[in-house]
Amino acid sequence: MEETLRTLGILRAKHFSARLDSVRLKTGKITERIKVDHPEAAAIVPFLDRERILMVRQWRYAIEAETLEIPAGKVDPGEEVAVCARRELMEETGHSARNMVEIFNYYPAIGYSDEVIRIFAASGLEAVSEYTDQDEISKLEVVEFDKVHDMITKGAIRDGKTVIGIALFRAKMERGEIADDFFK
Amino acid sequence: MEETLRTLGILRAKHFSARLDSVRLKTGKITERIKVDHPEAAAIVPFLDRERILMVRQWRYAIEAETLEIPAGKVDPGEEVAVCARRELMEETGHSARNMVEIFNYYPAIGYSDEVIRIFAASGLEAVSEYTDQDEISKLEVVEFDKVHDMITKGAIRDGKTVIGIALFRAKMERGEIADDFFK
Repeated sequence: MEETLRTLGILRAKHFSARLDSVRLKTGKITERIKVDHPEAAAIVPFLDRERILMVRQWRYAIEAETLEIPAGKVDPGEEVAVCARRELMEETGHSARNMVEIFNYYPAIGYSDEVIRIFAASGLEAVSEYTDQDEISKLEVVEFDKVHDMITKGAIRDGKTVIGIALFRAKMERGEIADDFFK
Repeated sequence: MEETLRTLGILRAKHFSARLDSVRLKTGKITERIKVDHPEAAAIVPFLDRERILMVRQWRYAIEAETLEIPAGKVDPGEEVAVCARRELMEETGHSARNMVEIFNYYPAIGYSDEVIRIFAASGLEAVSEYTDQDEISKLEVVEFDKVHDMITKGAIRDGKTVIGIALFRAKMERGEIADDFFK
């Protein structure tokens, strides 16, 4: 247990905030901790068919680089996370999904953020429109699922949620936890 | 590409900081982004033998809960990340390691942090002392590697770096990329 003594400062962005707290550790020692207060997020592994998924190429301000990732985004206030997953899939790829199953949820940065990322697998995709999120997405790519796994093990994909989404979907497949009709 | 217009505020903790930037997106739109400036971090999957690893139980301020994780920590200024891995293993578990191999490195929170976590697998462990990091670690646990994998797929372990460390080590094993003498 660690006790918050006081908040020394706070930064507020549109969708989340960061604060610096003075904290008493369990040993009695006083220290300072940065904490990011973040809404839940949804990420989606979208299967076009059994072999291919949709991915998005986007600029990431924090690392000053373009990356290849699975679609994802923050839950809006009052929004259900499964609704958020469908909305982000539509905004970032222009596709709707007939099937959506949750595969995992986890803490990406447990040392300084309360964010939970909930990962879904989607299938029965239908192209409805051009993707609309021009602010963030630069390109939509179709990638073979097995190739994504290779890109991860070779270090070409280094985004945590993409790594976990692909690894945990494979684990679920191996355990027979993905229904036979998921890809139909 | 996204252009920083100016930094609106900054929070400084001992080892890292967070700032709020005004940013011009590639579409020309102006928005604000929080960015955590974080040193590189090391995480270690420490094998006592082929079947068992060491894990640490610790309180996590950001999520207000105790978790079971692989040992990890931030690189000190000027420190090599492999040196950091050995230091954190010693501080958090009291063990030295004869063998240390890098298995993966990734961005845990690419949306708002430049942190890179570099994951190592360690073997040839030797208990040198009591663990010293009483401020953060509450308990050391010996867990079967297969059980950790089960705890992940069942959702009992939800720490990103632990999930990735276990999954990527398994992938390396399956690909024959862990030398036969690693566990000796």
